[in-house]
Amino acid sequence: MKKHNFSAGPCVLPKEVIQKASEALLDFDNGLSLIEISHRSKPFVDVMEKARRLALQLLDLEGKGYQALFLQGGASTQFVMVALNLLETEAAYLNTGTWSSNAIKEAKLYGKVHEVASSADKSFSYVPKNYTIPANCDYFHCTSNNTIFGTQLTTFPKTDIPMVCDMSSDIFSRTLDFSQFALIYAGAQKNMGPAGTTLVVVREDILNKVTRSIPSILNYNVQIAKNSMFNTPPVFAVYTSMLTMEWLQNLGGISVIEAENNKKAQLIYSEIDLNPLFTGFAAKEDRSKMNATFNLTETKLKETFETMLQKEGISGLNGHRSVGGYRASMYNALTLDSVGVLVDVMSELERKA
Amino acid sequence: MKKHNFSAGPCVLPKEVIQKASEALLDFDNGLSLIEISHRSKPFVDVMEKARRLALQLLDLEGKGYQALFLQGGASTQFVMVALNLLETEAAYLNTGTWSSNAIKEAKLYGKVHEVASSADKSFSYVPKNYTIPANCDYFHCTSNNTIFGTQLTTFPKTDIPMVCDMSSDIFSRTLDFSQFALIYAGAQKNMGPAGTTLVVVREDILNKVTRSIPSILNYNVQIAKNSMFNTPPVFAVYTSMLTMEWLQNLGGISVIEAENNKKAQLIYSEIDLNPLFTGFAAKEDRSKMNATFNLTETKLKETFETMLQKEGISGLNGHRSVGGYRASMYNALTLDSVGVLVDVMSELERKA
Repeated sequence: MKKHNFSAGPCVLPKEVIQKASEALLDFDNGLSLIEISHRSKPFVDVMEKARRLALQLLDLEGKGYQALFLQGGASTQFVMVALNLLETEAAYLNTGTWSSNAIKEAKLYGKVHEVASSADKSFSYVPKNYTIPANCDYFHCTSNNTIFGTQLTTFPKTDIPMVCDMSSDIFSRTLDFSQFALIYAGAQKNMGPAGTTLVVVREDILNKVTRSIPSILNYNVQIAKNSMFNTPPVFAVYTSMLTMEWLQNLGGISVIEAENNKKAQLIYSEIDLNPLFTGFAAKEDRSKMNATFNLTETKLKETFETMLQKEGISGLNGHRSVGGYRASMYNALTLDSVGVLVDVMSELERKA
Repeated sequence: MKKHNFSAGPCVLPKEVIQKASEALLDFDNGLSLIEISHRSKPFVDVMEKARRLALQLLDLEGKGYQALFLQGGASTQFVMVALNLLETEAAYLNTGTWSSNAIKEAKLYGKVHEVASSADKSFSYVPKNYTIPANCDYFHCTSNNTIFGTQLTTFPKTDIPMVCDMSSDIFSRTLDFSQFALIYAGAQKNMGPAGTTLVVVREDILNKVTRSIPSILNYNVQIAKNSMFNTPPVFAVYTSMLTMEWLQNLGGISVIEAENNKKAQLIYSEIDLNPLFTGFAAKEDRSKMNATFNLTETKLKETFETMLQKEGISGLNGHRSVGGYRASMYNALTLDSVGVLVDVMSELERKA
């Protein structure tokens, strides 16, 4: 039976990527497995360099003063690294959900944090607008897509201070002027690859402004100087991310996948809005094109609905444990067809009820 | 042609582990790939729990107050975490090579470091003995095996302060009373699995003694409280490490592989000592059973030797870029047969020369 995997991450990846990764485990270089060779060998150094180049190319940031790194530790490690490397006295943070809140918590260990706005007052169901970013801050930090609550920033503020963005759950999903950001980071396990590596794209001119001593492994300068191989990199995760970026580039790049992502989002949100059995969680104007969060209006239909989902091979639709309800995560590799199957089940439930 | 992979890490892994990992990428849970499912799903939570249990079982530390964690960031991140979590005022470090030196460098960011002894005076070709560990230190840190220089600690000092050991390159390779250590850490990419995860085994009673604020992701307590899933773990690396530990347990555990490792070491070192064309780098009494470092006595034979190696399918024999010469890394999954092939080439070179 065909599977429709709506998991919020780790999540569906392109079939051909998984096939190639599986083959590379058996024979990558002259009979040796991808995971048995030295990371300093030419075949793997080539992989790392290609991954770094592809990331910059897809974001249209090549030759613009940026470096791409594939690190370990997830976005949660970036919450710390961003502050360690950039926060000298004060920083501005926009609070749009759990991950923003966590980023703020870690930054407070290193300096003063201005929370410029927060949507905590309405369970993070919307994105605050019309806030002011203090000009004396070292940087402004925001989270472009809020996986848990299903909101997404459609515009970004204009500011003269460096803008740092956690794009873990919508990187490579839509066209943006990425040069408005001084630093972008993203855990791989949504649109980029398997769990285990984190992309950091940083404009070099923002570094070297803090006076503290930074541990080597957490120092962007050290990682850049070592070409993203200060220590043994997470070989498999970097290789599989490279394959996924290659797949996206061969499709035609971000603009092509964005058109597909728009269709998927339109399809599911139309159903949520038209079907009286469902209600969306996020404010309409702030709805995420990656994660559609919704609830059943009649809880007695829960079991029926979930049995129908299972029968159609739909998995990963449960909302985050902190929110409940449902969440349809529609990352790049999820097909429009899969969203169609889900929408059919939702319509079928209405006919049955 | 059969391959003989002497790579220092990432390195050879058991064939059946690689086979199973490759299959799990195609279908791990009900048609879904290992890297496409939620890390919070039961199938993966079971993997993490089994990996944590196996690590404690293999080290005979189950039920003795220890916790096993599978983190990200390599031993280089542990250099920082150990100091952040344990170093309140002073710590004692034994310097036996590059990795010890790096651990010392990072610890100095957090307190006073006593270098109790160092073998830097002789290019780290031996292990210092008869040093004193100050009793007022928060902990004593050592590196059990020095991959680059090919030395290994055969005994560990008696001390009343917690002993911390970087076992990245010899974990699970020999029996020891592991309860003499309060904290053991090891990057996976030698005896345990692919690059991308780091095992930390920590006795809980040594935690909560420092007064500083520790970033969540770098806090052992936080990681323990979250069952090694504070954030998305490196799914593939943890799964493949679990398979490798399972393979070792099925073989009969560490004592069985230790006997095999002893045979491999004896074979190569006998050849190095008997063959006038080769000379060992490390002091005889401190030789590593994992990494045999040696040089050609007649450099004009270099090309001939390396051509012969290649012809026999031997790879990964180059010494570390900072040392040169040769290094035969003989981790758990390297067979005695492979060492035999290498030794045959060394003998053949002698006959030819």
